[in-house]
Amino acid sequence: MNKLLERALAGDTRSIGRLISLVEADSPASKEIMKTVYPKTGGAQVIGITGSPGAGKSTFVNRLIAQFRAEGKQVGVIAIDPSSPFTGGAILGDRLRMQDHAIEEGVFIRSMGSRGNLGGVSRGTHEGALILDACGFDVVIIETVGVGQSEVDIVKIADTVCLILTPGMGDDVQIMKAGIMEIADVFVVNKADKEGADKVAADVQVMLKMIGEREWIPPVALVSSNKNTGVDEVREIIKRHGDYLRSSEEGKRRRWSQLEMEVEAILRGEISQLVENAWKERKSDEVMEDLSSRRANPYTLAGEIMHKVVK
Amino acid sequence: MNKLLERALAGDTRSIGRLISLVEADSPASKEIMKTVYPKTGGAQVIGITGSPGAGKSTFVNRLIAQFRAEGKQVGVIAIDPSSPFTGGAILGDRLRMQDHAIEEGVFIRSMGSRGNLGGVSRGTHEGALILDACGFDVVIIETVGVGQSEVDIVKIADTVCLILTPGMGDDVQIMKAGIMEIADVFVVNKADKEGADKVAADVQVMLKMIGEREWIPPVALVSSNKNTGVDEVREIIKRHGDYLRSSEEGKRRRWSQLEMEVEAILRGEISQLVENAWKERKSDEVMEDLSSRRANPYTLAGEIMHKVVK
Repeated sequence: MNKLLERALAGDTRSIGRLISLVEADSPASKEIMKTVYPKTGGAQVIGITGSPGAGKSTFVNRLIAQFRAEGKQVGVIAIDPSSPFTGGAILGDRLRMQDHAIEEGVFIRSMGSRGNLGGVSRGTHEGALILDACGFDVVIIETVGVGQSEVDIVKIADTVCLILTPGMGDDVQIMKAGIMEIADVFVVNKADKEGADKVAADVQVMLKMIGEREWIPPVALVSSNKNTGVDEVREIIKRHGDYLRSSEEGKRRRWSQLEMEVEAILRGEISQLVENAWKERKSDEVMEDLSSRRANPYTLAGEIMHKVVK
Repeated sequence: MNKLLERALAGDTRSIGRLISLVEADSPASKEIMKTVYPKTGGAQVIGITGSPGAGKSTFVNRLIAQFRAEGKQVGVIAIDPSSPFTGGAILGDRLRMQDHAIEEGVFIRSMGSRGNLGGVSRGTHEGALILDACGFDVVIIETVGVGQSEVDIVKIADTVCLILTPGMGDDVQIMKAGIMEIADVFVVNKADKEGADKVAADVQVMLKMIGEREWIPPVALVSSNKNTGVDEVREIIKRHGDYLRSSEEGKRRRWSQLEMEVEAILRGEISQLVENAWKERKSDEVMEDLSSRRANPYTLAGEIMHKVVK
């Protein structure tokens, strides 16, 4: 294990991959891995890329990788694959486009399931990003599924959140509803060569005004990933946002709040494990029959289970 | 409190509303309320209505209420309003159409926020439905937001899940991705007077074949909520599905599995409470500075907190 950690921290991609797999599978070693890795984190800028399916997130990420590579930066990518909570299997598998960079020096790309969470950003995602950070990647990009919880959850682990929009998808309504507007640090209007891109950008500006004054006013960039225009501007905005976070009170607040959520997530994981075991021990056909016939009630039962675990 | 419970269980709508508010706000009394109410549940058929925003869920629900009312059934409705996880406020408020029935005898309609969950079916939703069940409503309808987690989560608390589709919304792709097909017991093709409705129905049939053999083959009904056609057929299908659940092994499996999830959801709530309290006690600016500078790490810190809390 020490060898593996050493090699990974020295930048060996196969060892990094192994580490992430161990952590993703929540192996017994994962806590020790994270304790070793953690002190070395904090150097990378973690960029969350979100937006509806079909907005062109993967193509954009591809272009963004090239931008950072051109500056000699090491880039790690975690792409969350949606998996059906029923079949367990990944339905969408078109990660292929991003594989352009998969073999290049200085780029590491990893697909991850969403572990039961419908498109959610899991502990595994966060720990994967921390490992990449510790292993010396300057930039860690997390691409979300772009549905539901994942879009909002990304703010818990990313320094900079980019929302990818695209003309003619009715995105404006989707965003308003889902509360994504509030968490985006950069708006990217992708497919800007298509009609309606200017309208989307203008709509975003209007909505930003509605949200009210903030210290960091999220810029809106027009991009065509296909024609590779505007991506350099996004790179510069992202860097500027990184500087802002490092130097502002808001940046500190954000880091603290993320750390709090991190501690809470770890605690929840540990306690959940214990409670789950206690529930497994208690569960039986009789218990289920009693609940089903309303002779027992789940509230009292849960209280008893908690009592077994908690001091 | 006992008075309030008594009046609610006797069918007083104002008291029922108060109870739901107390439970929704997760007040200290809510656990006691649920313990009292629970033994009286199990009589209602809980119907989940899901489908994309714009599919016409509210109008359909309105028509369905009228169908059950015509048979003299008492109908309770919980409509989940999306609320921004940041502002806490409801953005969409067009529950007005359903208010047709809000004042009628035998109908109770309640809007609920989604408590931080992005469109999710929360504990409050479930407990609200249990309260309506206990208070004598024959039918409890839960209308989801129709995005993300809520669409899948509804299966955890509904006996019968109706998926509302509509021509020309690209719904087919949306459904395939989100795993909603697997959980629907009834497919309602709404706006059936529009072009393309037959195509949607045929697509659903093809997809159902792909999912494979099941005991209950979800019927596909063509409905026009505007013209009020086909809704009676849906009512009959829903009743048939209720009979099927009561008499089949599959129905028993489903009830057990829902009960398990219920116990687990309550446990999860208790765990969150515990985590929050334990972390609050330990948290300080020094701790945060130590984490922030990587002098401390959240894994070790969480371990220490666990040691204090757990037996």
